[in-house]
Amino acid sequence: MKNVFTRDIAVRFEENPLLTPSDIKPSSKNLVVVGLMNPAVFRFNKKTWLLVRVAQRPHQQHGFITFPVSMDNGEIETLTYPNSDPKLDLSDPRKIRYDGRDYLTTHSYLKLMCSDEGREFYEPENYVPIFGSSELESYGIEDCRVTEIDEIYYLTYTMVSAYGVGVGLMKTRDWKRFERKGMILPPHNKDCAIFELKFRDRYYALHRPSSTEFGGNYIWLAESPDAVHWGNHQCIATTRENMWDSARIGAGCSPVKTPKGWLIIYHGADASNRYCLGAILLSIHEPWIVIGRSSSPLMEPTEEYELKGFFGNVIFTNGHLVVGDKLHLYYGASDEVICGADLSIQEILDSLDLENK
Amino acid sequence: MKNVFTRDIAVRFEENPLLTPSDIKPSSKNLVVVGLMNPAVFRFNKKTWLLVRVAQRPHQQHGFITFPVSMDNGEIETLTYPNSDPKLDLSDPRKIRYDGRDYLTTHSYLKLMCSDEGREFYEPENYVPIFGSSELESYGIEDCRVTEIDEIYYLTYTMVSAYGVGVGLMKTRDWKRFERKGMILPPHNKDCAIFELKFRDRYYALHRPSSTEFGGNYIWLAESPDAVHWGNHQCIATTRENMWDSARIGAGCSPVKTPKGWLIIYHGADASNRYCLGAILLSIHEPWIVIGRSSSPLMEPTEEYELKGFFGNVIFTNGHLVVGDKLHLYYGASDEVICGADLSIQEILDSLDLENK
Repeated sequence: MKNVFTRDIAVRFEENPLLTPSDIKPSSKNLVVVGLMNPAVFRFNKKTWLLVRVAQRPHQQHGFITFPVSMDNGEIETLTYPNSDPKLDLSDPRKIRYDGRDYLTTHSYLKLMCSDEGREFYEPENYVPIFGSSELESYGIEDCRVTEIDEIYYLTYTMVSAYGVGVGLMKTRDWKRFERKGMILPPHNKDCAIFELKFRDRYYALHRPSSTEFGGNYIWLAESPDAVHWGNHQCIATTRENMWDSARIGAGCSPVKTPKGWLIIYHGADASNRYCLGAILLSIHEPWIVIGRSSSPLMEPTEEYELKGFFGNVIFTNGHLVVGDKLHLYYGASDEVICGADLSIQEILDSLDLENK
Repeated sequence: MKNVFTRDIAVRFEENPLLTPSDIKPSSKNLVVVGLMNPAVFRFNKKTWLLVRVAQRPHQQHGFITFPVSMDNGEIETLTYPNSDPKLDLSDPRKIRYDGRDYLTTHSYLKLMCSDEGREFYEPENYVPIFGSSELESYGIEDCRVTEIDEIYYLTYTMVSAYGVGVGLMKTRDWKRFERKGMILPPHNKDCAIFELKFRDRYYALHRPSSTEFGGNYIWLAESPDAVHWGNHQCIATTRENMWDSARIGAGCSPVKTPKGWLIIYHGADASNRYCLGAILLSIHEPWIVIGRSSSPLMEPTEEYELKGFFGNVIFTNGHLVVGDKLHLYYGASDEVICGADLSIQEILDSLDLENK
């Protein structure tokens, strides 16, 4: 369903898609890269870096389904069942349900890619990939946000395991040594982005808990003395019935401080799992108060690579760079490739609805 | 289904039930008290105190359903619909589903009751009830745990609203002035109990997040520098297939320090929503490691007041006192009345299964 009020104001990069699965070798020979997506974006050593989610799956044999179940520094164990097994439910390409239990069809890790001008990316030398390593990451790690505060990079990412889906934190200064701080937000939680500025001597973060009863998939705000321990959780934005963001919403990366307030780029999905991007503006001094919000998407799947892929009809972002009025936004398209687009911050601010928040 | 290995080792109080809905006046005349249940238990001023959950609902008219939707210092707004409304789903006595949205049939607040010997409870003078007051408590507050550390009482309780179900914290020294610290664990979360002893300069707590995919209703451990901000979440115990605790588990109150380890009394429910109590033993120095666990319930619904009530077949505890080897345990029965039972700590420890954890 195309929203008649849609006004997609993004200028997509001519080079799109910037990165595709064929650009990366599998981490072991029994695996295939099925998606490069949802990168964190940051500046480091005068270059633009992406921290890319690489989704891999085992080679498949005809008539059977093989899926990853565990990993230890890149090694992935697999389970194989005949497609005809009545205990198998393969209706969602991202998940496998077997005997009442959910597994992922793919296993993700995070890989650094580097660029001089932000369009052409290459593998940097002497930087190793980041794999999940704890029991809470046995189904992989996904969709990292990177926030730089006082020359320390904070990586907030999704930990996936049979115990649930939660938010993990790592810290690094040099992208070679990482301090792993464990799970900072318990299940079910993802889409966590730490603000670039501390205020009232506190770290602030957006996050997206999900509810099994009451509530839904909403954006919340939390605060912390140390970025490791979080409290004072407040719901700041909910899904909106019969709109493009009716089923779930989640923050992109760290909010942009503008004269009008904190600007969040967020994703919204409807019941058909169509993912678009919109914006939310928060009060500068009271960031739990929403001032404005996109009534129609800023970006919605329109290009071939956004409409079709591993999981089509998806635009998802968790990283951008701010240069003057420009937002250089990177995004995963169709859960398969990485793309970029430029947006004007002023145009976004001008487009916000001050009523329907 | 009665577990053939069941060995209910609790000695129920002869006075059971200790408190019933008729013992408490409604907080306003358009309300009815339908349940007194799930009390926190603590010692204060040389007396035994219960912090009782009082569940109220509006008076019902024949042919209509009326339910509470919001409250402000005891005032509850109501919605009324004809029972025949096709948008109504009344299949669960605890919840109302209307037009795709969930509401509670009842609205809870917390009330102090007091006793000299722990069997006969009366309303103390000059102590007011605790009502939910924030937007995150608009459907009420429930099932408080009380932990005393350095003469400060920490109240961890369930906040319920349209935004979701999470854990709130209040602190008090005198039970007259309360410092409200907001939501400390975001949705979906409940059953939070803070340890009575800090170690490694950290507070520890058990809690029960729920998952919408992967994971389940498991018991987790978290740590905090200040009891307000929480991190390092670890899953310590899961539900067990085909057992009495197959559907959901949650900690009772603060663990008991024994020479063998930290002893947790917990509730477990199966798919039929039958709630029993069991125990988990954690390593003293590494409380994320489970040493032993009850294969069969320590307590299961057997008495008339445990089998039948507002929501029958339920034994639920979130409070006990330790006196020597005795655990004076208080519990909600059938989500309607408050009861007590004595258990021997040594007998519980002896009953634990060291294999099936």
